[in-house]
Amino acid sequence: MAPTARATVRRLPERGSYDRADVHAVLDEGLIAHVGLAGDDGPVVIPMLYGRLGDRLILHGSPASRLLRGGAKGVDLCVTVTLIDGLVLARSAFHHSMNYRSVVIFGRATPVRDLDERRAALDALVEHIVPGRRVDARPPTEKELRGTLVLALPLDECSVKARTGGPKDEPEDMDLDVWAGVIPLATTVGEPVAATDLRVDAPVPAYARGYRRPGAQVRSA
Amino acid sequence: MAPTARATVRRLPERGSYDRADVHAVLDEGLIAHVGLAGDDGPVVIPMLYGRLGDRLILHGSPASRLLRGGAKGVDLCVTVTLIDGLVLARSAFHHSMNYRSVVIFGRATPVRDLDERRAALDALVEHIVPGRRVDARPPTEKELRGTLVLALPLDECSVKARTGGPKDEPEDMDLDVWAGVIPLATTVGEPVAATDLRVDAPVPAYARGYRRPGAQVRSA
Repeated sequence: MAPTARATVRRLPERGSYDRADVHAVLDEGLIAHVGLAGDDGPVVIPMLYGRLGDRLILHGSPASRLLRGGAKGVDLCVTVTLIDGLVLARSAFHHSMNYRSVVIFGRATPVRDLDERRAALDALVEHIVPGRRVDARPPTEKELRGTLVLALPLDECSVKARTGGPKDEPEDMDLDVWAGVIPLATTVGEPVAATDLRVDAPVPAYARGYRRPGAQVRSA
Repeated sequence: MAPTARATVRRLPERGSYDRADVHAVLDEGLIAHVGLAGDDGPVVIPMLYGRLGDRLILHGSPASRLLRGGAKGVDLCVTVTLIDGLVLARSAFHHSMNYRSVVIFGRATPVRDLDERRAALDALVEHIVPGRRVDARPPTEKELRGTLVLALPLDECSVKARTGGPKDEPEDMDLDVWAGVIPLATTVGEPVAATDLRVDAPVPAYARGYRRPGAQVRSA
């Protein structure tokens, strides 16, 4: 993708990518997005679950949401998804950093009005959160579909930024007697906890027992 | 704290809190913030490391940053920190949800100009990322201090929102033959990896070996 002005990585541009596959990989591994919009009283950033349907990011909410109500004209968003991979401990305080991968998407999200499309979008959202769950969960009724605001944001204007590797210190600091390196961080999954009001004798599904984010490295913690 | 209009939790207000201790707890456990501001071409959200110095959130960046350059007048921000605690698998697709804790802060960040204050703010930032590290790392030189833009955002206008517990399904779905419950998620820490160019025989510090976020539950993964 050729980046627009606002989607161009300016600080440390060597960390940027505009490759569609890189964008998709971060979005598919990520779980929540931070969605920014211009509110009446200034910027607002809210955490939201999301899904990906091809080249569109899917967001949903209540039709009463003051934030996502943008009408037919859509709503200008900046959506950011960040994966934290590690903490970088440099010899100097100044060069401490973070290893991460993030996607920033700019664009106008428009409502998905067609009910079949809306169903497909919500399917993608559930499938993004827990791959495999969609076929087990009771599908949305028409009333639920009509009662859900679904927005689609094209993945046209976006970038990936990533930092990897160890600390980068000043030459004069290299002999300081202080440990330097990376503390790796990852999201890990605990044992699934059954609902206290679970009435049926359903076993924990394999997608819950063996849950992990697509693309995430398996790491013994 | 008495919430302002924009800092009032409107969707599911029973999940909201304006308690200062609740705000601090989430900020101290969190690692990165998503910082939103009104750019020339619409909203922009960027992930940033942060620190907390008393009742102020500390952000930093390069003086060349197009985003944080706001001059003496400061820059209007919305800063959101989100901790993900679990995925909520309801019987119906519609009621799938997430357990989380998030803080949303509104306000105007102003530059920390005094060099001693700036040093204290950057100390708080390093200490937030890796508690214990500050005393080992080489402190900022005056040149580094002068070359760092440090912003302080008062924690006056903010809220915490949290969801905990199991799925909340419709009464008519309670007997569906499908497992329901929560998949717990947490951040876990891998073995520290020494820098490949580490020249000294420094052992891995205890704060790196036993790293965990303040307040985070220890979980066997």
